Amino acid sequence: MSSSVVYHPGDGYLAWQQYRRTPSSNVDQYAGYSHIVAAEPNDAVMGSAVGELSRGLAGMTGKQVSISRIAVNAPCIILGILGTGTAVDEVFSEGVSGTLKAEGYVIRTDSNTANIAIGAVTSAGMLYGVFHLLRIMGTGGSVEHLNIAENPVNQLRMINQWDNMDGSVERGYAGQSIFYEDNRITSNLERIEDYARLLASSGINAIAINNVNVHRVESRLITAFLPDVAKLAAVFRAYAIKLFLSINYASTIEIGGLPTADPLDSAVREWWSAAASEIYSVIPDFGGFLIKADSENRPGPFTYGRDHADGANMLAEALKPHGGIVIWRCFVYNCKQDWRDRTTDRARAAYDHFKQLDGRFMDNVILQVKNGPIDFQVREPVSPLLGAMPQTNQVIEFQIAQEYTGQQRHVCYLVPQWKEILNFDTHLKGEGTTVKRIVDGSVHSNPYSGFAAVSNIGNDTNWTGHLLAQANLYGYGRLAWNPELSSEEIAGEWITLTFGTEKSLYQTLLSILMDSWEIYEAYTAPLGVGFMVNPDHHYGPNVDGYEYSMWGTYHFADCHGIGVDRTSATGTGYTSQYAGLNMALYESLESCPDELLLFFHHVPYTHVLHSGKTVIQHIYDTHFEGAERAARLAAAWELVREQVDEQAYRHVADRLAEQAEHAKEWRDRINTYFLRKSGIADQQGRTIYE
Amino acid sequence: MSSSVVYHPGDGYLAWQQYRRTPSSNVDQYAGYSHIVAAEPNDAVMGSAVGELSRGLAGMTGKQVSISRIAVNAPCIILGILGTGTAVDEVFSEGVSGTLKAEGYVIRTDSNTANIAIGAVTSAGMLYGVFHLLRIMGTGGSVEHLNIAENPVNQLRMINQWDNMDGSVERGYAGQSIFYEDNRITSNLERIEDYARLLASSGINAIAINNVNVHRVESRLITAFLPDVAKLAAVFRAYAIKLFLSINYASTIEIGGLPTADPLDSAVREWWSAAASEIYSVIPDFGGFLIKADSENRPGPFTYGRDHADGANMLAEALKPHGGIVIWRCFVYNCKQDWRDRTTDRARAAYDHFKQLDGRFMDNVILQVKNGPIDFQVREPVSPLLGAMPQTNQVIEFQIAQEYTGQQRHVCYLVPQWKEILNFDTHLKGEGTTVKRIVDGSVHSNPYSGFAAVSNIGNDTNWTGHLLAQANLYGYGRLAWNPELSSEEIAGEWITLTFGTEKSLYQTLLSILMDSWEIYEAYTAPLGVGFMVNPDHHYGPNVDGYEYSMWGTYHFADCHGIGVDRTSATGTGYTSQYAGLNMALYESLESCPDELLLFFHHVPYTHVLHSGKTVIQHIYDTHFEGAERAARLAAAWELVREQVDEQAYRHVADRLAEQAEHAKEWRDRINTYFLRKSGIADQQGRTIYE
Repeated sequence: MSSSVVYHPGDGYLAWQQYRRTPSSNVDQYAGYSHIVAAEPNDAVMGSAVGELSRGLAGMTGKQVSISRIAVNAPCIILGILGTGTAVDEVFSEGVSGTLKAEGYVIRTDSNTANIAIGAVTSAGMLYGVFHLLRIMGTGGSVEHLNIAENPVNQLRMINQWDNMDGSVERGYAGQSIFYEDNRITSNLERIEDYARLLASSGINAIAINNVNVHRVESRLITAFLPDVAKLAAVFRAYAIKLFLSINYASTIEIGGLPTADPLDSAVREWWSAAASEIYSVIPDFGGFLIKADSENRPGPFTYGRDHADGANMLAEALKPHGGIVIWRCFVYNCKQDWRDRTTDRARAAYDHFKQLDGRFMDNVILQVKNGPIDFQVREPVSPLLGAMPQTNQVIEFQIAQEYTGQQRHVCYLVPQWKEILNFDTHLKGEGTTVKRIVDGSVHSNPYSGFAAVSNIGNDTNWTGHLLAQANLYGYGRLAWNPELSSEEIAGEWITLTFGTEKSLYQTLLSILMDSWEIYEAYTAPLGVGFMVNPDHHYGPNVDGYEYSMWGTYHFADCHGIGVDRTSATGTGYTSQYAGLNMALYESLESCPDELLLFFHHVPYTHVLHSGKTVIQHIYDTHFEGAERAARLAAAWELVREQVDEQAYRHVADRLAEQAEHAKEWRDRINTYFLRKSGIADQQGRTIYE
Repeated sequence: MSSSVVYHPGDGYLAWQQYRRTPSSNVDQYAGYSHIVAAEPNDAVMGSAVGELSRGLAGMTGKQVSISRIAVNAPCIILGILGTGTAVDEVFSEGVSGTLKAEGYVIRTDSNTANIAIGAVTSAGMLYGVFHLLRIMGTGGSVEHLNIAENPVNQLRMINQWDNMDGSVERGYAGQSIFYEDNRITSNLERIEDYARLLASSGINAIAINNVNVHRVESRLITAFLPDVAKLAAVFRAYAIKLFLSINYASTIEIGGLPTADPLDSAVREWWSAAASEIYSVIPDFGGFLIKADSENRPGPFTYGRDHADGANMLAEALKPHGGIVIWRCFVYNCKQDWRDRTTDRARAAYDHFKQLDGRFMDNVILQVKNGPIDFQVREPVSPLLGAMPQTNQVIEFQIAQEYTGQQRHVCYLVPQWKEILNFDTHLKGEGTTVKRIVDGSVHSNPYSGFAAVSNIGNDTNWTGHLLAQANLYGYGRLAWNPELSSEEIAGEWITLTFGTEKSLYQTLLSILMDSWEIYEAYTAPLGVGFMVNPDHHYGPNVDGYEYSMWGTYHFADCHGIGVDRTSATGTGYTSQYAGLNMALYESLESCPDELLLFFHHVPYTHVLHSGKTVIQHIYDTHFEGAERAARLAAAWELVREQVDEQAYRHVADRLAEQAEHAKEWRDRINTYFLRKSGIADQQGRTIYE
């Protein structure tokens, strides 16, 4: 413990880029590295790589860093594009560049000179290599014998901002937008650049900068606001991040002056073609369009008797000549359902809408599929649409923003959830057809594939509202780069980079993060049933909050039992959307996993789970335990008070205290609801308000 | 039927002041009255009286109306202040003026000359007399043998506008404010005058022109905005309506620059005294202040360890030298209740807060008490605070705005509800101590007493959103004038004045209005339990909408039963706030009236009502019947399509159709909720969604 060092994240702005004096037994190793060898940067990304390395080394060694074109003294850190005759070519064999993808890199320590060389085939790869080295040093790793070759597993590693130009953030829990205020694009490009640095350092390479719900003003991002969009694109470009825009499907009407948005209308197609040309004339490497159409009252091709493929292809055709792509969201369902209608099942909607369109989309269209069939609940099954369209590009959509998982007032480290989803075996092409192999494109050999996720940041100083929610942003990027990283590894990296290596602090934070999802699930909606939140803002318990609404999210609790029968035998038939083995797994009450039981089956409260408990006793037990465990998080944090600065300590302590209190409200409302409804007492006789 | 005439209310703007060619067999009687005899008006109210009579006669006779100071030809209508040597003194005996209160009047037809004389002791009385005569003619009554003497039963007949200066109306269901827009007072005084005419014609004599929730901007109505307030006061003054302002209790801090609002602080008292003087220098007949303090997060004397009497007396002292009054609302309760806390009962709050303060208030303070202990529900008991403070002035507060009774999208004629409340026997001073005798001041001989009510108007062309909701505004004024008028009489007047005398139309409208409260109650919250509405906006069914909230409005439904035990024996003791006979009535499950059962008792679903039905079957039956009856209202209206103009027909038809549809939603949500919760099937096997 003597060598352990504590970082003081303070207000949290630096996040995992503290670049403080390094806290490890390897600290002496780093001290000598104050010289960088690099060719004159020939693009902005290379400039960022050199700049970031320089900044990082200066911070971690406490020494001034020098930069030269050729190696003048050792040890130094040598950067170079492989095969261009720089010093790195002396370190790496000729064949190594063939093993690298565009964004890959190699890192090697020369055992003689102690020089560290980073090679890549693009400046983007170089930037990622630099961030890798800085991560090693930031976490106190040895740099004596580095021999690393890395490629990203996923091609598209994207962030979706749900920012509105009025400055609000839809489902934002960390203040206002950093991109917009008063219906204008921000002039504070410094904050944007700091965000770009955070994203690039975690591995992100694409961003859509406005909400998928595109209002009148944001419709003009592709026209009147283009000059300002170009400024943002330049900031992200320097960190190898492509900029996308969410567009309004009805732009031809709203801003184009046309009477229609029919995707087969030639005037409409020409308008989009001209709009794309205009965008690319200003932003030559523009990523493309993200679009939510015919969903939750947004316009779309249905109005004209066309389908999603017609709509997406119209846009894809306009972007194709410029290398752009269309990302079309599959979050399509009937949001005006009659609660009395038991035949409609929202869970079926994405699959029912899109599966039949496989093969109809152009090759620069990607479908963006939410991880589950409903909407980012704390627990739901994997969307059966993932992988079910072999001829169609797909990306998976996660939500880093904790809309349904505590809204960054509760701690809920989501990487374990995402891992579970990515490791789910769809059996679509036999055993081992995991979701991660679908979304990395290897199962169906799609030209495009990858990850997208809704950001959790705003203009709060610490970016994410809850300081610990930074772990989700960091973890998302790392997982998108390499889904094989474990939740613990990622959490450990984030903790060490942010707080240092002091062991009790590290262990406490690791426990808090690793337990948090399970705890949150325990005191909220049970057994996969979902929702039970207050309408609209989705915060806090409300068992019947959505029960009689038009949103298609019901639990059907009565005095006998609860759950949604989605079986093929007696229910909505949703189970049939899964491949045979999974269908059988979910269809049968015997084999259905406990944690998803109420998603797939309506059962009596007295039904006995695999755990040996009845459903009702499970509800009581998990809610008492969940609230207790939430309280223990706060207690555990108190024990490391001396190991962290007061500002960060107080911030986290306040949030954990709020969570503990709110967990009791969850516990009591859920328990009271079910005691009143079932009439079945708690076997342990604990306090449930009648 | 041949003599029946149909008015065409069209867009509804003229409301009950159609002044069209009169629709009765007495039409020939009116034709001759085209001459008015009146002294030169010496005040604005007399001018309004003459003007209104002239306008009304011209409209109803179709002839030009002439006016002279002395009688020149007969028949004519002679107006005069009694005992001032005008022509009316020849008609009425000397003693008659002694029988008149300030606002009273006499009307007599001279059997020889056929002249109609209207006498009063004030110009206000004259105005009311004129409106009475116009009402007779507007409803087709005979004027051949008039011999009328009328005094208002209630002294204060007040309207509360819940209008905000941003143009919104709290609990407004008829558009935006007619008083304000963009944080300024309107310059459209014509619409204000038309509103004053409507109010005066129904008998209203006071108005508070801004919301009791006073925001920063409205705090300055008593300072910066005074010149514009004076313009509004002048408009209302001409119709004998006194203007009041809702004030911010913390004005001394918010706009006065003082550090406190302590009511016993001399600087605070001086500030208010100066503020009052300033107001009266601009508006010499200013009515006074309406105030909501220490209620729903509004500031008040509690902050300083003072009580309501301290706060009210501070203001009363400032107003006293000018003849002004303070109207202090008793809507005070803990709005941050923990739903788990079963010892706190919101129903008790007003009585518990105020009863003990009897005798402490200055004689120009009036307490304004909501009609029931909760909040304007479709059914609740009468507030036990009414009449319980013999030494304190009280007015009753009704809500014409249909916040909990269909929000002017459903028809709900409230006069029968108000009548039931007014006729309630409190037994406070023996049998016959009815609420109406308390609020008219006769029981306790209070210097001030009367009615107040929240207005239901906005800038919709027809004033009230739903055309039929005009009947509530009209009926409120008429009832405040004379609580002995029957619901049918008032409805009949309104129908005839608005739609004419065509019998099928009249009967249909009368049935719609008279049945509407019962129908609305039938398909909404049952047996007096209240609420079961969506939070915040309060529209539409949501059984658990307030069940776990901080607002203190619970039903405690579980799988066995429902209701709030407010008995003294086993419950919250609320029943003890009633005089002995009423306490016994409500305390006993045997004697408690069915319609209030769940307000006072928690009972099993199988409890048998006096009606012979179980509670659960009552719920099912009333909800099926209520929805059916709502549908029949729409059907009945269709049958009189030919008897009304297309615009008014369509408007009412659309609202009734919406109501019928929404009543089904109420029916199904309530029935499903209770079927799921109780597990008890409908005896008649009707469709209840499971």
